[in-house]
Amino acid sequence: MVVVGGDAAGMSAASQARRLKGEDELEIVAFERGGFSSYSACGIPYWVGGQVDGADQLIARSPGEHRERGIDLRMRTEVTELDLPGQRVRARDLESGDERWWGFDRLVLATGATPVRPDLPGIGAPGVHGVQSLDDGRALLDTLEEVARRGGAPDGGPRAVVVGAGYIGVEMAEALIRRGFRVTVLNRAPQPMTTLDPDMGELVHEAMCGMGIETVNGAEVTAIRTGADGSVRAVATEDAEYPAEVVVLGLGVRPATGLARDAGLPLGEYGGLLTDLSMRVRGTENVWAGGDCVEVLDLVSGRTRHIPLGTHANKHGQVIGSNAAGGYATFPGVVGTAVSKVCDLEIARTGLLERQAAEEGLRFVSVTIESTSRAGYYPDARPMRVKMLAERRTGRLLGTQIVGREGAGKRVDIAAVALTARMTVEEMTALDLGYAPPFSPVWDPVLVAARKAVAAVRKAG
Amino acid sequence: MVVVGGDAAGMSAASQARRLKGEDELEIVAFERGGFSSYSACGIPYWVGGQVDGADQLIARSPGEHRERGIDLRMRTEVTELDLPGQRVRARDLESGDERWWGFDRLVLATGATPVRPDLPGIGAPGVHGVQSLDDGRALLDTLEEVARRGGAPDGGPRAVVVGAGYIGVEMAEALIRRGFRVTVLNRAPQPMTTLDPDMGELVHEAMCGMGIETVNGAEVTAIRTGADGSVRAVATEDAEYPAEVVVLGLGVRPATGLARDAGLPLGEYGGLLTDLSMRVRGTENVWAGGDCVEVLDLVSGRTRHIPLGTHANKHGQVIGSNAAGGYATFPGVVGTAVSKVCDLEIARTGLLERQAAEEGLRFVSVTIESTSRAGYYPDARPMRVKMLAERRTGRLLGTQIVGREGAGKRVDIAAVALTARMTVEEMTALDLGYAPPFSPVWDPVLVAARKAVAAVRKAG
Repeated sequence: MVVVGGDAAGMSAASQARRLKGEDELEIVAFERGGFSSYSACGIPYWVGGQVDGADQLIARSPGEHRERGIDLRMRTEVTELDLPGQRVRARDLESGDERWWGFDRLVLATGATPVRPDLPGIGAPGVHGVQSLDDGRALLDTLEEVARRGGAPDGGPRAVVVGAGYIGVEMAEALIRRGFRVTVLNRAPQPMTTLDPDMGELVHEAMCGMGIETVNGAEVTAIRTGADGSVRAVATEDAEYPAEVVVLGLGVRPATGLARDAGLPLGEYGGLLTDLSMRVRGTENVWAGGDCVEVLDLVSGRTRHIPLGTHANKHGQVIGSNAAGGYATFPGVVGTAVSKVCDLEIARTGLLERQAAEEGLRFVSVTIESTSRAGYYPDARPMRVKMLAERRTGRLLGTQIVGREGAGKRVDIAAVALTARMTVEEMTALDLGYAPPFSPVWDPVLVAARKAVAAVRKAG
Repeated sequence: MVVVGGDAAGMSAASQARRLKGEDELEIVAFERGGFSSYSACGIPYWVGGQVDGADQLIARSPGEHRERGIDLRMRTEVTELDLPGQRVRARDLESGDERWWGFDRLVLATGATPVRPDLPGIGAPGVHGVQSLDDGRALLDTLEEVARRGGAPDGGPRAVVVGAGYIGVEMAEALIRRGFRVTVLNRAPQPMTTLDPDMGELVHEAMCGMGIETVNGAEVTAIRTGADGSVRAVATEDAEYPAEVVVLGLGVRPATGLARDAGLPLGEYGGLLTDLSMRVRGTENVWAGGDCVEVLDLVSGRTRHIPLGTHANKHGQVIGSNAAGGYATFPGVVGTAVSKVCDLEIARTGLLERQAAEEGLRFVSVTIESTSRAGYYPDARPMRVKMLAERRTGRLLGTQIVGREGAGKRVDIAAVALTARMTVEEMTALDLGYAPPFSPVWDPVLVAARKAVAAVRKAG
């Protein structure tokens, strides 16, 4: 069994296969281009922000630990070609430059995703950073320390520009604020978090302003301005220039599927590998793929999407490892759940946005309610806004978005399970959720939204 | 429409009926024996503990507010007899003693529950308190203030004994600690929280000890010892005496269904009224019942139970109000969810305990895992233990118990929704729950438990 990619999906697959089959039954070789294995890329903003002490803490299992468990993990080794008919992959040792072919009976593709890096003047300057890998995180921290050492502009502390206001963008904005930077977020869309409907994204915008993060919406970056020494000086948009000593790119990622494309494997409309429910690549017998390089089935809309998330990658790995080792498991799909936070603002969604529901040809009602995390009279009851979409006529839950303070985010799980079970909003109003004053109002905010959605469905007819 | 009982279920029913039918279409009269309407009894421990300032805050809607909305709410008025064939109830004004009959077309019974008060020597002493109503809470606070004024025993502060270690018992223990009392909990069972399996209840016991709450298990109270002036001096068990200036009874409640029994209405094995799914009392045409006086259908076991909880009472009221006003709604049942906390320990359950599953003739596996509320590397990741029961062969989820610190309790909602949807633990392993390091490990603790349960089901065959 050959595994291409040594992060969450790849190494979960390798570990699960090893659990099911001993070393005398199955040889497992894994290749990782970078210097780290099995790490939490999602933790990088907290490492940069200082809440997590070092990269070590983000590593679930080191290369040595994998090798001790009988997985021949080869670091700094890049797979450069897939020969599927010949059942072999070509790999290059990035240290020595040596290259050779490795045969396989079973192949696992877990090549991950690549950050979007627009082709702009100055984009290659040393102060411009992505934050996809631990190597990226280390490089950014080095730059931050150097900028801090040099001292900031005469009118205040050092300055950072974050390009993009999705999950990574807002998380990195917080991290940079924590590091003492003045932060401007340049965002092409009309509001931050286009993973939310505009009205909910607007709440995030307001909260970011309150946290001292300058957010410029509708800002199309045109160039990175550098000084004579090559260091970053500013970020230019069509309308203005934003001084900065460091630039962080948070423009999302694309599936890293160049090898797979070259090998003729099927890709979806987002460029991700297409698999069946056992995570086997469509049209193949012995090739599985998982993690950020695949498209996943969205159970609400019935189509595939690219949703790069560590939690999916881990599940894919488990399923792939079971199947590749002769067991049986499936990954039925996702409902599009995501949570994030910026300072104390919690942001969550699951299911479809209004825009997505409309694209799928669905007619729906949407309602929004305000409630609190605990009984209103209980100390530290914090406000939250819940938006809920339900299909007209059937009343089926289509999606839920929550923006609020402590206790808001994980409530989205209620809706995520309800979506998986294809519940109607009327069925949801009877859900037996945990109630006690320190935990919830007597009607949980999600139920308040469901009740309002029931009324809207009835009214819409 | 006549409503008997002016708390959550009764007044929700009245309000919902009024929303659907104007005053010219439907006259609504409600009778409440006590001095408060629509209040949160669940909030009393936090009022006593000082986290909530006054009884006012626990009142969702005052009698005056109800009257403004066209509900003729008569306080301090006790219904003393139901004449169902004659379609009338007899009510006594507790201030004037006047009594008269009131006719009805539709009757709503929301008579609540009565605290268990064992017939022990000294039980009537003024320092012995239940905590079922706001009147009870006020009386207890008066006693606490008086005891504090008198000063405690020479060897320390004032002393309280709590009898019973269920939800009310542990919440009141915390409240009394907050008020500066030394607290002993006398508990008949072998461990606190018999709403959990013994191994999970033991965690609560250990935590209570760590909080300075003395908990004596297997303690059968035999008498309340009083001094010459009638004030409480100690609580006696078969084995020992526990000095105390105040005693709080937390022994649970029983449905207050004396009137209903006298009127020949059907009661279940716990003494609660039996209703159909529209909350109409079985065998009647125009009598509905809800709240703490009814038994509810447990969707996991398929039988009725008595589960007195404000959140159910509110839902019942909504359903009753809709149906009594000519609309349509149902209450499908519960899955037995409950959350509570004592100091920073969060305690949650849903579905069946081992004991209950065995009583239902179910064969099951049970697994327990340890995990954390956030990614292990993220600050303030707090430990939690999750126990999960699944049916053998089918793998259907039967129940989940969680004991842990901040972030543990409300995770039970994931299992509550999964139980409602009759999911198997294998289906649960694929649930798309919110993941980001500040919110969850990459495998949510509930999913970790589900994975272990899948393995146990497979092994058990």
